[in-house]
Amino acid sequence: MFITLTTDLKMQSHGVGMMEAIIAEIAPQARVIHYMHGIADYDTTSAARLLETVRFIMPAIHVCVCDPGVGTARRPLAILTHRGDIVIGPDNGALHPAVAALGGTAELRQISNPAVMRHPVSAVFHGRDVFCPTAAHLAHGLSFQLVGEPVHPAILVPAPYTDATPEEGRWMARVIHVDKFGNTHLNISKTSGARSPHQPGAWSTWCSREVDTCPLPTTHLRACQARHARDPV
Amino acid sequence: MFITLTTDLKMQSHGVGMMEAIIAEIAPQARVIHYMHGIADYDTTSAARLLETVRFIMPAIHVCVCDPGVGTARRPLAILTHRGDIVIGPDNGALHPAVAALGGTAELRQISNPAVMRHPVSAVFHGRDVFCPTAAHLAHGLSFQLVGEPVHPAILVPAPYTDATPEEGRWMARVIHVDKFGNTHLNISKTSGARSPHQPGAWSTWCSREVDTCPLPTTHLRACQARHARDPV
Amino acid sequence: MFITLTTDLKMQSHGVGMMEAIIAEIAPQARVIHYMHGIADYDTTSAARLLETVRFIMPAIHVCVCDPGVGTARRPLAILTHRGDIVIGPDNGALHPAVAALGGTAELRQISNPAVMRHPVSAVFHGRDVFCPTAAHLAHGLSFQLVGEPVHPAILVPAPYTDATPEEGRWMARVIHVDKFGNTHLNISKTSGARSPHQPGAWSTWCSREVDTCPLPTTHLRACQARHARDPV
Repeated sequence: MFITLTTDLKMQSHGVGMMEAIIAEIAPQARVIHYMHGIADYDTTSAARLLETVRFIMPAIHVCVCDPGVGTARRPLAILTHRGDIVIGPDNGALHPAVAALGGTAELRQISNPAVMRHPVSAVFHGRDVFCPTAAHLAHGLSFQLVGEPVHPAILVPAPYTDATPEEGRWMARVIHVDKFGNTHLNISKTSGARSPHQPGAWSTWCSREVDTCPLPTTHLRACQARHARDPV
Repeated sequence: MFITLTTDLKMQSHGVGMMEAIIAEIAPQARVIHYMHGIADYDTTSAARLLETVRFIMPAIHVCVCDPGVGTARRPLAILTHRGDIVIGPDNGALHPAVAALGGTAELRQISNPAVMRHPVSAVFHGRDVFCPTAAHLAHGLSFQLVGEPVHPAILVPAPYTDATPEEGRWMARVIHVDKFGNTHLNISKTSGARSPHQPGAWSTWCSREVDTCPLPTTHLRACQARHARDPV
Repeated sequence: MFITLTTDLKMQSHGVGMMEAIIAEIAPQARVIHYMHGIADYDTTSAARLLETVRFIMPAIHVCVCDPGVGTARRPLAILTHRGDIVIGPDNGALHPAVAALGGTAELRQISNPAVMRHPVSAVFHGRDVFCPTAAHLAHGLSFQLVGEPVHPAILVPAPYTDATPEEGRWMARVIHVDKFGNTHLNISKTSGARSPHQPGAWSTWCSREVDTCPLPTTHLRACQARHARDPV
């Protein structure tokens, strides 16, 4: 069984180290994959976008800790997806795009069973004390139903972004991530029917470097229309 | 058996990669946890503070390489703690707070047995050639007594910090670490009896963001007294 | 079997996470060592220099993805070395110094067998879809001959640097890497016969901090001659 970790903790920090150690103690046979660390502090939009990409790998337990609400009453969630993944993290919207990309919600529960937590539960580090222990117990064979009571999806915090839609022949898209190479990701999905100015007929969420020259941090772009007059997107 | 690595090497650098590889060759069954890398160059105070936090995880072999004296005659140490951990690194004081947090020293030895080292021993990378091979041999079953001769604790370099104590009703504390989120850690331990301005009755070494607005790198603060007149710490 | 990963992807990014996950799915028993990530974008000189250092560890499969030509017709390569390592990556010269350090080429092939790739093959991420799956299949027992057809070495892109040679009693050396501590690496190998100003008789590729004070990014230095008049190198 694989457990992936996606966090806004500092890369290769002791917080990350502790999370792996807690898992290793509970479920020594589970392989921990450090999927992404060092996301900008509390940037749930980037976290959501990056977590979405786990659809490219095999089904696993995915822990996502980008948690501006840690220590408050926000819900800790565990979501079983139709693809067979389990997505774990706080209820702040960051989990939804990944869950959708993994086939949607099959079962949704709030983590409330004290037996799946590490005690005492710190007020500031639920990654170590709630989310990773839960993932480890699940990897070690715990039944999903035992993490806590069911939650109705309608009461959850909404996703930080949804798919862009065309308006009057234009796409009003939003930058949801800029990577190390300057590639800019927009919230236009492959299934939206939009055409890419670079790969006509097959728009990709990987946008071109040209977009990157737009004045960030303006995060709403007119999707290159002016620059690609022959092939408006 | 678990081996944690804490270093001031660049995060995910080839130095770190070599250290894991050397361990993997000697003790393939040992799990390496990258506990913390990328500490500021030669910053033994941060290294000591971060290493202290291994008390939150299970007993393991902890290697800490923040080594301004590499290539000089400073001692390479292996310390068996009362909790059952083994702490390994150069004698520059950085190991002491962790050893104290792990129940204190049960046995202290200097690493001097050539059989536990990788040869030729580089003048600049004892992490690869001395500390990690020693950890790997211990994880693979080597008796602790075989790493080298006993050393008297009195001759070791002292810790880079000790617990703060109150003076005339004030705490003169020192900043021993600032994390990615701006949380500032002081050398006031939970057992010191100090009260936190934010969690009265239970001071934590996690200090508030307000402290963070003090002009760093001034590392001696009057611990918020002026700002929290109702609850002097 | 060990697989090392060296890339210019962001450290602990989802790209790195995906690469490990793809390997873990194909070859669960292979141990992935994150040898080096976060190399400057497309900096094949640094990549080559860093990859060279795998000669200090045990024979393994080494994947190096620093790939300015991704998506173009540049060749994906797999090189079996005389030491027994397999070096995998794009044909941009970055693999050559490592291959030379590992005893030279025993067999050279282009990765072209669709069965060793992940499909659909992305235009922008051959690390995930070509290089890592190939490494994983080899670690899982695939015969080296099955990765693709042989290639003649003469048609490969040359290395980004070669060993410096003396001219009129002087060494014209090039800085090929500067590490986190300011140590500057030159393209002068131990076997070149040059003497170090600091370790007379045994020049090391680790040059002194004094070199580091030269005005970078000038990458051709007169190798300290003026400063070390008594011991010209």
